[in-house]
Amino acid sequence: MSRGRPFRTLVSLEEALERVLSRVGPVDRTETVPIDEALDRVLAQDIEATMDVPGFERSAMDGYAVRAEDTYGATDMEPLTLRPIGTVHAGEVPSGVVGRGECMYVATGAMRPEGADSVVMVEYTEEVDSGTGTGTMIRRAVHPGENVSRRDADIKEGTVPLRAGARLGASRLGTAAALGVLELEVYARPVVAIAGTGNEVRPLGEELGPGQVYDINTHTISAAVRGLGGTALVLGLVGDSHEALAQALDKALGMADLAVFTGGSSVGERDLLVDVFGERGEVLFHGVQVKPGKPVLAADCGGKVAFGLPGYPTSCLSSGMLFLEPVLAKMGRRPQATPVAVEARLGRRVVSTIGRTQFLTVRLEDGTAHPVFKESGAITSMAEADGYVIIPSNVDLVDRGEQVEVHLL
Amino acid sequence: MSRGRPFRTLVSLEEALERVLSRVGPVDRTETVPIDEALDRVLAQDIEATMDVPGFERSAMDGYAVRAEDTYGATDMEPLTLRPIGTVHAGEVPSGVVGRGECMYVATGAMRPEGADSVVMVEYTEEVDSGTGTGTMIRRAVHPGENVSRRDADIKEGTVPLRAGARLGASRLGTAAALGVLELEVYARPVVAIAGTGNEVRPLGEELGPGQVYDINTHTISAAVRGLGGTALVLGLVGDSHEALAQALDKALGMADLAVFTGGSSVGERDLLVDVFGERGEVLFHGVQVKPGKPVLAADCGGKVAFGLPGYPTSCLSSGMLFLEPVLAKMGRRPQATPVAVEARLGRRVVSTIGRTQFLTVRLEDGTAHPVFKESGAITSMAEADGYVIIPSNVDLVDRGEQVEVHLL
Repeated sequence: MSRGRPFRTLVSLEEALERVLSRVGPVDRTETVPIDEALDRVLAQDIEATMDVPGFERSAMDGYAVRAEDTYGATDMEPLTLRPIGTVHAGEVPSGVVGRGECMYVATGAMRPEGADSVVMVEYTEEVDSGTGTGTMIRRAVHPGENVSRRDADIKEGTVPLRAGARLGASRLGTAAALGVLELEVYARPVVAIAGTGNEVRPLGEELGPGQVYDINTHTISAAVRGLGGTALVLGLVGDSHEALAQALDKALGMADLAVFTGGSSVGERDLLVDVFGERGEVLFHGVQVKPGKPVLAADCGGKVAFGLPGYPTSCLSSGMLFLEPVLAKMGRRPQATPVAVEARLGRRVVSTIGRTQFLTVRLEDGTAHPVFKESGAITSMAEADGYVIIPSNVDLVDRGEQVEVHLL
Repeated sequence: MSRGRPFRTLVSLEEALERVLSRVGPVDRTETVPIDEALDRVLAQDIEATMDVPGFERSAMDGYAVRAEDTYGATDMEPLTLRPIGTVHAGEVPSGVVGRGECMYVATGAMRPEGADSVVMVEYTEEVDSGTGTGTMIRRAVHPGENVSRRDADIKEGTVPLRAGARLGASRLGTAAALGVLELEVYARPVVAIAGTGNEVRPLGEELGPGQVYDINTHTISAAVRGLGGTALVLGLVGDSHEALAQALDKALGMADLAVFTGGSSVGERDLLVDVFGERGEVLFHGVQVKPGKPVLAADCGGKVAFGLPGYPTSCLSSGMLFLEPVLAKMGRRPQATPVAVEARLGRRVVSTIGRTQFLTVRLEDGTAHPVFKESGAITSMAEADGYVIIPSNVDLVDRGEQVEVHLL
């Protein structure tokens, strides 16, 4: 009789991801946020233009509004002179109508005065004072419409310039602002409940007794969740009893869209999480062919996915990122982040296990990737890394000096 | 006499960036934040380890703690039997000393019991019940130290695992947590004061009169600032008078590390910003060889840089990003973001101006980059884009079908 429960069937990383991703969907809840708090959120409504933007024809340049036909033939050598009848600044209503032989000074963005159909840029004009009064010399002909912006040049009333599903970057917030929209309905961030287990794990701020360590995992996983656009709801540390775990799982499923338990998915006798997950739903897998992170556990509990991540800090964060990145991208309706990769030469020979995808953390120095992996229990295996090299499951050795692709963290 | 003030000397984009970057430096102010709010911040203190992590030798596996010499020769065919004297879970203090011929069950992460120097993985053991009592069959020999983690395997007391200047990702927050650190001293975010000008520009929520438009620029620029890790302090809309602008600049310089004025840097007669900036400091440039965004203005006002960005929304945001990205990276001690680029074929012929770097916004569709630029005044020129193509200043035409590099927005 064995005291532990070994992993019966390890699944490949690809298979594990597929099983989980088939059970999660985009979060449908929405919330209304002020425009200045909507950066990077995902729009949940179509925004229909209730007005033209701009709502009037305007000058695209500083210059003189004219009737184009009055300028035909004007050149540097043979300028024509028009009679200035006033000025219109941006935001003002023109005070007159431009008649034949007349012009009106217009600033960029100012309304086109009635009568004028085009604008001569100020660079091609000159104010002159002759015996008969002030005149404006025009040195360049314009065609009708030249340097005048259409009334709906930016946005046409009745169109839908922003659609549900759009990710709100600065420029799209600008489109909303152009329409005077103060608040936007966006999809809620996926809420992730996080509980830590392990009786040796103590909260920060307490004195450690012999055999105890500080809680690393709820802090790293909640940071990862926030970095991936989710809301982290930290339930804290949970005792390693069946009852305590079941209670925490129920609480997590009640409050959140996704549950993550750290620790408690190894083969030890206190590893009750598989049983608890099994009681509440369907275990999707327990054990993945990946290093570090083999003992990852996932279940579908009534339509919400629950993860059990390994307790060792680097295994926990590394496998946590591996699963949470695509899962939260799907739940949050975002494209999955593409890690930026650089080429480097491996600093020393590394052996790997056939049948196991290995994530090897490395530090980059002068084009060389130095492995910094100490052990799964050491968070510094990851904190001191600039990136990681993926050693595929069919490779058992990468030699010193071999070219590798380093995915930057 | 010309009514406008043309740009006397346009500087190249490179020269403009260099002038500005030579006048800004990293922000030195610091603030203390709880560990769970420190994600993505930059550490302002060295963190010295005041303890070993872990603070004890521990088992790296579920299994039996043994004296290695007691296992020598053990194989599947010829197992040896040891006498189990108890169990130690993670977080517990072992209740006895492992003597010759004895073993103690240890969970992963549990303290090594005195007497034992190694751990046999549970997979290679079996509990047996013989006539003389319970025994543990050992099927694999271990060497001293096998499956036992060193006391300081992760972090050694007295070392400095996190140094000032480190960007706090999830794994580095894990290092701080491992040491029980509750709060971290981080550098303050660069504070950017933003003021909008233009008498035609009205705040969102107001009714628009004829010739008026909604304020787009303070919303897009503040979003850009937040996206670049800065704190945006929106001063709102400022009247186009010398006095109002001077007051707003003084306020901005008093509250913030950087000032950004939108609008008011074109050649129109209300463009007083150059004068105001000149009175308060040294104008670094006025006019950049870039499209859109030519009328960008920058000054060094007593050690703080002030920008005047063009009022037209796409010019404003596009040139704003161009300058704010490297400037805020330097002020915030962050690496500059490398835009992700993809290859595509240009959807139609585009002409450009020699001597002007052009940023052409495009939408991507099946490997083709379709220009979506309408005009600088249209925010949708940018909001409908997936990215932009840079047309260098020495190129005057890019033909339909030519291969271009699209920098994704």
